[in-house]
Amino acid sequence: MSSDDVPFKSIAVVGVGLIGGSIALAAKQFRVCSRVVGVGRNAERLQRAVEAGVLDEAVTDVSDLNQVDLVVVCTPVDRLVADVSAVLQATPPETLVTDAGSVKANLCRHIYEMEFGKSRFLGAHPLAGSHQSGFENATAELYVDRTCVLTPDAESNASTIDAITRFWSGIGMRIRNLNPEEHDRVLALVSHLPHLAASAVAGLAEGELIDFAATGFRDTTRVAAGDAELWAAIFSDNADKVIAATDELILQLQRYRDALQSGDRTSLVAMLSQARDCRLRFQERNSTE
Amino acid sequence: MSSDDVPFKSIAVVGVGLIGGSIALAAKQFRVCSRVVGVGRNAERLQRAVEAGVLDEAVTDVSDLNQVDLVVVCTPVDRLVADVSAVLQATPPETLVTDAGSVKANLCRHIYEMEFGKSRFLGAHPLAGSHQSGFENATAELYVDRTCVLTPDAESNASTIDAITRFWSGIGMRIRNLNPEEHDRVLALVSHLPHLAASAVAGLAEGELIDFAATGFRDTTRVAAGDAELWAAIFSDNADKVIAATDELILQLQRYRDALQSGDRTSLVAMLSQARDCRLRFQERNSTE
Repeated sequence: MSSDDVPFKSIAVVGVGLIGGSIALAAKQFRVCSRVVGVGRNAERLQRAVEAGVLDEAVTDVSDLNQVDLVVVCTPVDRLVADVSAVLQATPPETLVTDAGSVKANLCRHIYEMEFGKSRFLGAHPLAGSHQSGFENATAELYVDRTCVLTPDAESNASTIDAITRFWSGIGMRIRNLNPEEHDRVLALVSHLPHLAASAVAGLAEGELIDFAATGFRDTTRVAAGDAELWAAIFSDNADKVIAATDELILQLQRYRDALQSGDRTSLVAMLSQARDCRLRFQERNSTE
Repeated sequence: MSSDDVPFKSIAVVGVGLIGGSIALAAKQFRVCSRVVGVGRNAERLQRAVEAGVLDEAVTDVSDLNQVDLVVVCTPVDRLVADVSAVLQATPPETLVTDAGSVKANLCRHIYEMEFGKSRFLGAHPLAGSHQSGFENATAELYVDRTCVLTPDAESNASTIDAITRFWSGIGMRIRNLNPEEHDRVLALVSHLPHLAASAVAGLAEGELIDFAATGFRDTTRVAAGDAELWAAIFSDNADKVIAATDELILQLQRYRDALQSGDRTSLVAMLSQARDCRLRFQERNSTE
């Protein structure tokens, strides 16, 4: 920690895309740190992120990281175990590590098996995104007033939790704690399943059918335009919970189907009203949506 | 028909909400008719629509309609059979009738059983909507460059098709013809199913789960905020096709589930990519979405 009011002297961001770039910009703008080092595989792109003012410095290898207080790993879900492990091995014991991945149990299980894994690493999932990508679209405001889930468990190190909470709240986020398994169960239902359902619905609109799609299709399937590899990685990393959520959705659809089949209009209205209530509660909590 | 350039001298709109109001405004603004009569149950609200310039005149009973060339019935799906029948009975044989409902086979089957039903009525489904309601939110541009499905079949009257096509294209719409059964099959997949899926997904986000919902949930479940009674009526009126579409969705979800269960990442990516292609084709056709 620095001696002045800035909580971290320097931080590193591994993976400088939209997420990593936004974290870098926010950390500087909200004075959470004095210096941001970017780590990536493409030296030329990293140099452009330095020139754009997103980073203060860039390195292409985690072993070149010197004296950073905190490393935020922002690479895709299926690279997180390898990347977080590499950071823990390449940096001194006093360097803390967090991430920004959408799935937590598998990652935490692997990292907690490592020496210092539990004392130096705390998983995080900032709940904000964008349809855009690349540091060129990064913005310091991406995370302001959004929820960040941290995933400590009963054995997590209290001072590590404190420091990493200070980081994510410092860039404007509201912190919620869930253990890794609970995080994955909840996110399977409110994030991974909506994406899977959107893709399943979009995939049925083959050929000429798309000519008759309008605003309902537009909204419901919007996220199906997302990167297929990236989402396959998220679903796979959280397979058990996504399967359970999909089974719940199938049951729910069968209830609608049965009500339609039997002409049970009362049940149909009751199910649609209960769903509407859930949606309206979401809108109340997110007044700009 | 009037003798000048205006295709219809006067039209009537039954049900003056957002849809009926927008049709009324568009018909005048785009010079498709000279005069619009509104028909509704609430005399006070109708009077306000006259004062707001949405209507030229208002009546509360279809039997008060005199000498209108065309009646556009814009009431909810479960009132269309009764309302279209009443209009056909109350108006002279030269008055044509169309509607703006989301389901067509059941309506057309009933109306075609009536005397003059087939010669005077042609079903329509303008594919545009809004989250808002009421004539206060009506706009003449709601239907511009949107698709309107007309549902003639082999026995439909050619001059009726011509006149009603002229009306809907006159307010700016692109016309597509599908027979009533085909319309309902297609719309079940690209409109009714997305709504049902959105509601099924939203309904699983009970209690505290909603605190962890973000942009994916926001987009995918947006339409679940819609009116439960109205959508129950649409699903019920198109029950067979919605059941078939729901069964297709369940099969699709089971394929995702099986790929996840067996760790078949290749199939998962292939399914997500196929869905992404469908969604991107929609975006290409609707460049502002």
